[in-house]
Amino acid sequence: MENISGSGWILQENSFNPAALGKCEAIMCGGNGYMGLRAATEERYIGERRGLFVAGTFNRFLSDTEKDNEVSELPNAADFLEMEIKLDGQLFSLAQGTVKEYIRSLHFATGELKRQMHWVSPAGKEYRLDFHRVVSLGDLHTVAQKVCIQPLSGVAEITLSTGINAQMTNSGAQHFAEGPKRFYDRRYMQLVQTTTQSGIDFVLTTDVTLSREANTRIAMDRRRIFSVYDISLEPEEVLTIEKITTVHTSRDKKTEGLDTAALQAHALAHLKAQSALGYGEIARQSAEAWHQKVWGNIPVTLESTDPTDLLALRFAQYHLQIMAPAHDNRMNIGAKGLSGEGYKGHTFWDTEIFVLPYYIFTQPETALSLEEYRYLSLPGARKKAEGNGFSGAQFPWESAWLDDGEVTPLYGAADIVTGLPTPILTGLIEIHITCDVCYGVWQYYTATGDADFMARCGYELVFETANFWVSRLEPGPEGKLHINNVIGPDEYKDQIDDDAFTNHFARWNLWLAMAYRDALARENPALLEKLRPYVRYGAWEEKARDIYIPEPREDGIIPQNRTFLTLKEIDLTKYKNQTQVGSIYRDYNHEQIGEMQVIKQADVLLLILLKEEHFTPEVKRANWDYYEPRTLHDSSLSLSTHCILAADMGDEVLAYDLFKRACNIDMGPNMKSSDDGIHAGSIGGIWQCAVLGFGGLRLVGDKIRLAPALPKAWTRLQFYCWLKGQKIKINITHDTVQVENLTRTAPVEMEINGTTHVVADMLEIK
Amino acid sequence: MENISGSGWILQENSFNPAALGKCEAIMCGGNGYMGLRAATEERYIGERRGLFVAGTFNRFLSDTEKDNEVSELPNAADFLEMEIKLDGQLFSLAQGTVKEYIRSLHFATGELKRQMHWVSPAGKEYRLDFHRVVSLGDLHTVAQKVCIQPLSGVAEITLSTGINAQMTNSGAQHFAEGPKRFYDRRYMQLVQTTTQSGIDFVLTTDVTLSREANTRIAMDRRRIFSVYDISLEPEEVLTIEKITTVHTSRDKKTEGLDTAALQAHALAHLKAQSALGYGEIARQSAEAWHQKVWGNIPVTLESTDPTDLLALRFAQYHLQIMAPAHDNRMNIGAKGLSGEGYKGHTFWDTEIFVLPYYIFTQPETALSLEEYRYLSLPGARKKAEGNGFSGAQFPWESAWLDDGEVTPLYGAADIVTGLPTPILTGLIEIHITCDVCYGVWQYYTATGDADFMARCGYELVFETANFWVSRLEPGPEGKLHINNVIGPDEYKDQIDDDAFTNHFARWNLWLAMAYRDALARENPALLEKLRPYVRYGAWEEKARDIYIPEPREDGIIPQNRTFLTLKEIDLTKYKNQTQVGSIYRDYNHEQIGEMQVIKQADVLLLILLKEEHFTPEVKRANWDYYEPRTLHDSSLSLSTHCILAADMGDEVLAYDLFKRACNIDMGPNMKSSDDGIHAGSIGGIWQCAVLGFGGLRLVGDKIRLAPALPKAWTRLQFYCWLKGQKIKINITHDTVQVENLTRTAPVEMEINGTTHVVADMLEIK
Repeated sequence: MENISGSGWILQENSFNPAALGKCEAIMCGGNGYMGLRAATEERYIGERRGLFVAGTFNRFLSDTEKDNEVSELPNAADFLEMEIKLDGQLFSLAQGTVKEYIRSLHFATGELKRQMHWVSPAGKEYRLDFHRVVSLGDLHTVAQKVCIQPLSGVAEITLSTGINAQMTNSGAQHFAEGPKRFYDRRYMQLVQTTTQSGIDFVLTTDVTLSREANTRIAMDRRRIFSVYDISLEPEEVLTIEKITTVHTSRDKKTEGLDTAALQAHALAHLKAQSALGYGEIARQSAEAWHQKVWGNIPVTLESTDPTDLLALRFAQYHLQIMAPAHDNRMNIGAKGLSGEGYKGHTFWDTEIFVLPYYIFTQPETALSLEEYRYLSLPGARKKAEGNGFSGAQFPWESAWLDDGEVTPLYGAADIVTGLPTPILTGLIEIHITCDVCYGVWQYYTATGDADFMARCGYELVFETANFWVSRLEPGPEGKLHINNVIGPDEYKDQIDDDAFTNHFARWNLWLAMAYRDALARENPALLEKLRPYVRYGAWEEKARDIYIPEPREDGIIPQNRTFLTLKEIDLTKYKNQTQVGSIYRDYNHEQIGEMQVIKQADVLLLILLKEEHFTPEVKRANWDYYEPRTLHDSSLSLSTHCILAADMGDEVLAYDLFKRACNIDMGPNMKSSDDGIHAGSIGGIWQCAVLGFGGLRLVGDKIRLAPALPKAWTRLQFYCWLKGQKIKINITHDTVQVENLTRTAPVEMEINGTTHVVADMLEIK
Repeated sequence: MENISGSGWILQENSFNPAALGKCEAIMCGGNGYMGLRAATEERYIGERRGLFVAGTFNRFLSDTEKDNEVSELPNAADFLEMEIKLDGQLFSLAQGTVKEYIRSLHFATGELKRQMHWVSPAGKEYRLDFHRVVSLGDLHTVAQKVCIQPLSGVAEITLSTGINAQMTNSGAQHFAEGPKRFYDRRYMQLVQTTTQSGIDFVLTTDVTLSREANTRIAMDRRRIFSVYDISLEPEEVLTIEKITTVHTSRDKKTEGLDTAALQAHALAHLKAQSALGYGEIARQSAEAWHQKVWGNIPVTLESTDPTDLLALRFAQYHLQIMAPAHDNRMNIGAKGLSGEGYKGHTFWDTEIFVLPYYIFTQPETALSLEEYRYLSLPGARKKAEGNGFSGAQFPWESAWLDDGEVTPLYGAADIVTGLPTPILTGLIEIHITCDVCYGVWQYYTATGDADFMARCGYELVFETANFWVSRLEPGPEGKLHINNVIGPDEYKDQIDDDAFTNHFARWNLWLAMAYRDALARENPALLEKLRPYVRYGAWEEKARDIYIPEPREDGIIPQNRTFLTLKEIDLTKYKNQTQVGSIYRDYNHEQIGEMQVIKQADVLLLILLKEEHFTPEVKRANWDYYEPRTLHDSSLSLSTHCILAADMGDEVLAYDLFKRACNIDMGPNMKSSDDGIHAGSIGGIWQCAVLGFGGLRLVGDKIRLAPALPKAWTRLQFYCWLKGQKIKINITHDTVQVENLTRTAPVEMEINGTTHVVADMLEIK
């Protein structure tokens, strides 16, 4: 049995492995969209990376020096999970003594994390310890812990030390000033910490209750408040510890405007109410919320010869649920969700291309919130465009709080040639993010038909992104318009010209603006009049006509950019077989890699996937054959794209293999790759492989298409999706496709296996 | 054998004990006055507290919120000690596997720290590991490490990961912005970090060399630069790793004015030169410096039935040497030296009363530097006085960088009654620090006769402190002048009036100003003329005459303050027998303790010790009998005072017992009391017990007095002291006192056992 395994509803770790601490913290992360809580253990270990992240609470590390490389990031808030447990004088730690039994399990059905163990201390005394924890999906502010300790070798003296510890940092960057801390009634502990630059108050309040009388001491330290409990237990007596904690911040919409003291009072009252419920009831309410929101509502289910396939889908839905700040449209999804420090909580194109489809199809209200975030970011995007001498809206490559603007760091890992940090240019020139945002609007509207959103936000986003391209195009000597000096999806190529992906999408952005404007002229002239300041129809038309588009060569190959096909080729076998991504950087620096035909992730192939109506099957195949062997999949965003394309091309064996590899990015055996957090885009990709790939649900042109292609291992795939305001149940076997409109308030037009159908109620296609 | 023991030149830990990590880090701390490096291990453990502190590099944690409780403190700089060592795939850690042999030893003679062990991995493979380390006393910027690894179970694959890690904080407070980091020649690693508010650049540069070819990778992370080495070893082959590191800052006087890039270049060149020397030569040069500065120059030696007595003296001299920033008169000594975060690197009265005598008598040039620090702080002290509506100079209770002013934090530990942090009033009203500074000047001048210092600094310090008292005294209704609302040395009493210690010393401060002014009028009228702006003779005279002095009652008891003798008494047995200081705070809060006759530390008794000429032997005895039983010795500054007084009163059994207890404050069995750093004042106290107490060397009035009183266990005590510019060797047995003037350029007048002698060369008294 692998150390990390699972089936049904449970992902589990089968033995304690210090090397897997970071991985389990991330893949077993708890959360509810408001906060993400890494699955750090109650006891501490070297190598752990405790983390509590509250969506949208960005802060920039403060210093008076102007030389730093800091950008706004999601701060790592105080830790309250820690419990220092002394059993008969011995600090409890699985790194010492003997672990007789051990299972750590994440229960997707309820969101609970459990650890059950039988531990023999170095002195030979035996204990049973059970740890339970849930980040409530029923109450976004609440985390509940329950610990049961049973001595198996006679009486036991137990000392528990626990509280709230605000000494946590983001890899050393401290984002908080220490605020007030205090006890109430010698029982409730409360600690306030305030972000240093953005001034957001965090109020953490906690209550510890024990099943037995304890001798209790209260204590404070710098950035810490805690209590120490001494308890004597009879042989085999079970001590139950419940710790209920609430998290509030001054950024919370519900309590906006409260000053620190009022927020403290609110938090205390809320804690008292939650603590009165107790662990069991909090866990029950959370499980109920999971059922209502996900498992009893929009589950993906499948029958496969390999039960881990279904587990992977549940893993994906679990994480897609906990990473999305659906409660607040001023927030978006980070590239690592809320599961780690990686990418600083920033939002990338990952949202629009890799995770948005999930929400559009299953939780359109969450998708709407994510789209509204982009709309609320428009002022900043206009400012960025203006600052760079352009018109319209230029979206930041990395995005944090609404008015933070571009937050991409300027330097990365060591350059092995120069010995200096490698400059990061994505924030300056990876400009396809702007058409990706437009693509997000298009996807959302095409699937939902949400005219209200379009009127409030959508048209303006499409027009203003088009206006950016109008100003960004540069005339070449031959009369065509070019987009020079960019980075495409393949970030191994810096400062390139006429990137196929970017140019294609820029033209499409212009086209979409024209199409929407035409439709408005027909259907809603009053709204068009309101949007007039953003409408530059003549310019869109002219630029779309004159833009240079890298067309397929005679052999069908689309040049990834102006020079790519002329670059030298090297034997990539070593790197294709790598166990860790990015291994090529151990042999070459970024500049050298830029001069070879080696690709980080799907680039031309992603273009072909997203805009398939523009390319023939022959072009698709030729580019697949050319580019895949040159692609190292050094981005977690690469495999799912290749999986779906392989399914499209009928290579179901390869597609299934790529699906497995995509699932393994986080769930697989690599112990280190998820330390910084899960890969949100890749997790969206798992769902995409199943539903968009094997299920074949796709938006093409203006149509909704369904063209399933199940892998052999799967005998049934069933999922739910919202289309044009109707909830549709889709059930696929190798022989039939059942499509049922559950809402039935309006028929939905779909192309199913090449034929157009109107789904008004139940439909079965053989 | 105790787990921490020692004899001769070596203090050692006999088995690995995770509970003693912090203690050993502090008591085995390395340093050279420029920097202090806690004795953290190469491998990491839960509970460790790594720390590198460079004298005088104060910074205030930066935040935009005005609500924080931050003050300027000595920042914890980047760690370079860490070596992650994998032995055949297993992370080396003594918390796992079996430790067959283990000794950690600090060698006072050379300043080297060694760890030698035989380790069996959880997989049963055996290794011998030797760790050596020295913070060079020969080159203040250099730290050298040497590690030898020998596999005893066949061939071995070793992976070493090491570099510079700037993720360190002060209990969560990050004082540094991340600066440039880079490799040179794929070999030398350099990292710059800049304090966030004071803008001090730290440049750390390191070089790792191996005795065998390795496969090397270079790497960077946030706030980290490191290299990874893979090495294959033959059976029993010894791998030797040398790591040489240099530390420079933009506060260094020698390189003042260099910009960051120039300082980086300087640091690299310096590192290369040091690294070329290698571990052995660096250690040799350091040992030579230890010999020249301490052990071959000013050693205290003694013959005792208990060899740990001599060890304690060496322990004291070792720490007194490494804690003193003798190289820079803009810096002083922190209450924890440079050995931990405790007291934030701040300077207290501990300098003048508890450690200054050591330097005055053994290293007068260091004493001079410490005195000059106070002189350079005069502008700030004048500002503090002015800000509080007083004249003259009011010194801050806690002092950091010269212009930081008062840096005492405003809140401390939890109040068990209110649940809130306890307010700290010492920075506001513990005003006796101002006469303590004056006392330091007087001690220095009386022992050294350094007229140059007095002309440049000393008189001004004495006059301006006197002027503070002139303005601080308040008339009472009966016509006397009072000092109300203060804290005396006994900090368990807040906001009290007419504190005996403060009032006595204030009067003496005025008297001393008058005496110095009179002497100047006689001997140096020109200088007096220059100092005229500070001379307020009439006021001094008047105030000294009218100040209320708490005189002894009929029974000889001096009231500690106006109300002390009226406070209620409780049974203190429980707290007198405590194993940890401050245990009374678990039962009472600060306000309640303020209402009882319970004392933290020597108060009236300290007054009697420091100003013994003002009190009769009967008064001394009466106050001893009254106050000692009411004193909890909850300050590390208490025991040595009581020891010396006991010696004075002829109770040599008690004196010797108190000496032992004073030594145990850091060297003793309490595993937690030194976690935050050693107790500088207490360590000064160990030396004071021996030399001032049992040796009987004292400054009384204007005289130098020698009145030895060896405890029974000691058959010989020998030490060196500088008096009036002459180096004097003093050799004491129970029968004889030998005093030799080694310098012999001037005779020194001393009162020896009640008779005045002039020591011109060699003198022996039976």
